[in-house]
Amino acid sequence: MSIYMEKAIAMAKIADGQTRRNPPVGAVIIKDGMVIGAGSHLALGTDHAEVRAIKSCITASEGADIYVTLEPCSHHGRTPPCTDAIKEAGIKRVFYAVKDENPKVSGHEVLEAAGIHAEHQPHHEVDALYETFFTHLLAGRPMVTLKAAMSLDGKMALDDGTSKWITGGSAREDVQHLRHSHDAILIGGGTLMRDDPRLTARIEGGGNHPKPVILLGDRMLTEGLNLEKHPEKPVIFTSNEENRKFENIYDIEYGKFSYEDILKKLYIDYDIGSVLVEGGSRIHTALISTGLYDQMILYIAPKLFGRSRHELFQNALSGMEEAIELELADVEKLQSDLKLTYRRN
Amino acid sequence: MSIYMEKAIAMAKIADGQTRRNPPVGAVIIKDGMVIGAGSHLALGTDHAEVRAIKSCITASEGADIYVTLEPCSHHGRTPPCTDAIKEAGIKRVFYAVKDENPKVSGHEVLEAAGIHAEHQPHHEVDALYETFFTHLLAGRPMVTLKAAMSLDGKMALDDGTSKWITGGSAREDVQHLRHSHDAILIGGGTLMRDDPRLTARIEGGGNHPKPVILLGDRMLTEGLNLEKHPEKPVIFTSNEENRKFENIYDIEYGKFSYEDILKKLYIDYDIGSVLVEGGSRIHTALISTGLYDQMILYIAPKLFGRSRHELFQNALSGMEEAIELELADVEKLQSDLKLTYRRN
Repeated sequence: MSIYMEKAIAMAKIADGQTRRNPPVGAVIIKDGMVIGAGSHLALGTDHAEVRAIKSCITASEGADIYVTLEPCSHHGRTPPCTDAIKEAGIKRVFYAVKDENPKVSGHEVLEAAGIHAEHQPHHEVDALYETFFTHLLAGRPMVTLKAAMSLDGKMALDDGTSKWITGGSAREDVQHLRHSHDAILIGGGTLMRDDPRLTARIEGGGNHPKPVILLGDRMLTEGLNLEKHPEKPVIFTSNEENRKFENIYDIEYGKFSYEDILKKLYIDYDIGSVLVEGGSRIHTALISTGLYDQMILYIAPKLFGRSRHELFQNALSGMEEAIELELADVEKLQSDLKLTYRRN
Repeated sequence: MSIYMEKAIAMAKIADGQTRRNPPVGAVIIKDGMVIGAGSHLALGTDHAEVRAIKSCITASEGADIYVTLEPCSHHGRTPPCTDAIKEAGIKRVFYAVKDENPKVSGHEVLEAAGIHAEHQPHHEVDALYETFFTHLLAGRPMVTLKAAMSLDGKMALDDGTSKWITGGSAREDVQHLRHSHDAILIGGGTLMRDDPRLTARIEGGGNHPKPVILLGDRMLTEGLNLEKHPEKPVIFTSNEENRKFENIYDIEYGKFSYEDILKKLYIDYDIGSVLVEGGSRIHTALISTGLYDQMILYIAPKLFGRSRHELFQNALSGMEEAIELELADVEKLQSDLKLTYRRN
């Protein structure tokens, strides 16, 4: 395990959660056993980690090695190819931890052709960091996290709709951090109209506010919603053409969209790499039954709500083979609530 | 913290779970700084810990000290008063960790009157061990544990009744240990007739088989049930007089009983100190809504069952103030299942 690759990983982690549908990438430049430059890809559309590392060098980079968590890109995307920058910098050896599965990328070959030593040096931490990234790149949709606060008996509200407050302060604070670490937050039109939520990430030091995505259906928007004040322009998916009059405030996506359409559109047109779905019952049920999700984060309150239509998953099943099987990934106690993380199986 | 009291606690724990509605009690006898005798109350109706410790002494107990987890009894119950045994043994000092709240017991005063030094020496571990014991003694009902295996969305079976298997092997094995540590296991007549369960504790080394308690209602028993082979004679509560013809096989309790009646009867007439309630939905709902339970042990499988009538708690509530509030006591991972322990609030 190279100590230099570990430094590159540390650089990658600095930017985790703020690079939209790009993965977090880190790079360090080593000459005579010393770190002479280090960089992180901090945001989509800005310099890649290799370029930032090169620009940051304290001495000439000729003849140096670069350690980078991801294979350098060789194509013109939002920024020029990193292989060009590496060549210009006079770097002689490139070590990268994960091969880029994007078919447009062949950095390894391009570097070798330029007489630069390129070497795949895998590292389990980077594998974990990019675990879902390529899945989503190839599927063309963001990572989807379903989030719900529930009673112990699986209800997101009492039958009459009451849901304030299911969980305690720590769980509600944790949700703010979840929002912070996602690019977008998705809710239904019912929740929008009933709760008029702010949909911001209210954490100490400001936080990254996820872009609000509303599945409004054929409902009409009204003026003066809290959503208008959101720092990111909300996207409204609606089948009601009249909502177009709000195009100055919102991105209005008018038409009939399947859940898959919506997720692809968010990924391609809005650069959304991760979506936090905050329900209601209908949206959760639809995404669960179509398998369009990656994980579920459930805050379980120590309460029983009894019979209620506000269920996490409201389909009736007709055999054990239809039951949705998940994988328990993590358990955390938050005061008297539980935070359970399940992955799709 | 006396090291002698800790030895007494260790002796008490040896018998935990096998003393029916008596608490586990341990005692050690100390002379010249050495343990000369030690005893545990091993089963209801047999010698108390003090008596067993005295009988076990390797040298004369005259002038010795005794450390015992519970204040010695001073009344004739199933066995003679321990205070008599202590006097006869010539013991000079008695240290006990918990005062017996049974109004019939005044061991401390009786000992003092006999010129023996009696001293209450509290210990948090003993407090925890006896936490619920006196509550039940005074309420005249056993400790009630509701147990259910559920999907993540709170269903004990699919809507069509399918429930095999909800949880994995470790959770099912854990249930056997739960059964082992309870005096009785309670199920409804529906479960009896549908599943024909054995209701034994199948653990390595044999295990303590809880007495089966069946709430049969007006159903008729049939011959040849697995229940007939149970090592403990099952108790059947029924409102159908015809079931009396099974009185040679079962203890038939004929009549109309409330849940409270049933629990009191188990405590007083059958010496049942702890009941494990294994459902179904109707029994769990009734005990939850009447508050006749102490804890809930829920095995949560990483599955979603969707809409189903087989809910842990099937009442519809009409306001957040009606929600059943619990206290999360413990979380344990069993393979991909979770074991959650909640206490009544």
